[in-house]
Amino acid sequence: MRRSLELWFDFGSTYSYPAALRIEALAGASGVDVSWRPFLLGPIFRLQGWNDSPFNLNPRRGAYMWRDVARVCADLDIPFRKPTVFPRNGILAARVATRFEGEGWVPEFVRTVYRANFAEDREISDREVIASCLAACGVDPEPALAAAVTDEAKGKLRERTDEAERRGVFGAPTFFAGDEMFWGNDRLERALAWVSRPSGS
Amino acid sequence: MRRSLELWFDFGSTYSYPAALRIEALAGASGVDVSWRPFLLGPIFRLQGWNDSPFNLNPRRGAYMWRDVARVCADLDIPFRKPTVFPRNGILAARVATRFEGEGWVPEFVRTVYRANFAEDREISDREVIASCLAACGVDPEPALAAAVTDEAKGKLRERTDEAERRGVFGAPTFFAGDEMFWGNDRLERALAWVSRPSGS
Repeated sequence: MRRSLELWFDFGSTYSYPAALRIEALAGASGVDVSWRPFLLGPIFRLQGWNDSPFNLNPRRGAYMWRDVARVCADLDIPFRKPTVFPRNGILAARVATRFEGEGWVPEFVRTVYRANFAEDREISDREVIASCLAACGVDPEPALAAAVTDEAKGKLRERTDEAERRGVFGAPTFFAGDEMFWGNDRLERALAWVSRPSGS
Repeated sequence: MRRSLELWFDFGSTYSYPAALRIEALAGASGVDVSWRPFLLGPIFRLQGWNDSPFNLNPRRGAYMWRDVARVCADLDIPFRKPTVFPRNGILAARVATRFEGEGWVPEFVRTVYRANFAEDREISDREVIASCLAACGVDPEPALAAAVTDEAKGKLRERTDEAERRGVFGAPTFFAGDEMFWGNDRLERALAWVSRPSGS
């Protein structure tokens, strides 16, 4: 039976960007499937008393993050340009990725939206930008966008965010190997090693 | 000329523990000297609006940290027992390590105090515990403890904490490779690679 690693991510989250770009190749090399789990960090941040990204609320922490994420992306040979708006609202992209979970084009859509935000400085809350990301993945944008904003689709993303809350998520990216939680792009290798352990160990 | 990596640490900081235990061997293998820089996180946390460790103020973040640091230590084969008091006050140990900076026994003293806190659950704010750590490193405790609490020695630690503030430190462990800052035990290898780069690159 194939094992699976869950990637929980928000399209506005800086460190989720390198995680989303590199997870599929790394997981594939370990014989692990990726379960893509978009959610919304906003409600999770509010639980912790924050009405904005902690990188904005804490300037010392924020200044370091921008330097660090640029280094991380350079090391991974991933293009990075500091977005002029941060954090961008990824709710529409998250609704699309949640509504079409399991479709073969979703991983490439996720990467395309992340590149739009963090390499091309495009406004991913803009419906036209998400439409162009869908088209770039060979998906007809209008039907997909219409399906992503039904009450059912909206409810599915809300449920996902509720699940993140219940499972103790406090930031992104977060990986779940079964019930074992790992936080941060730099824990991806460790999470994959965990999920690849022999059963019962 | 030997290159040097600065390790800025607080004796109460969980992730500083594995960093302090493994830095010397890793740095030595890269031909890099370690500059040990004890400081106090308390004033740095207060700058960020916190009157306690963020791991205590934010229970979701704290619950994860305890699980994660146990995994990190297990992976490194470093003993770890969750301290019954957190964070412990490391000011006396920091004064000792600052006062005797450059002495050959200081790195082993640092490691001994960290093990007392995070492997043996001993109260490192207790003068007798620090005396026993000094004795374990072959240092006569009483003269060392007396020298560590002079106004000059206290002032030196305060100056170090002020320097951390000026240089943008917001947590521990923090590594400086020249002016380049890296935060977190998981950035140790990256910081060493940075300091080891050919000059001018």
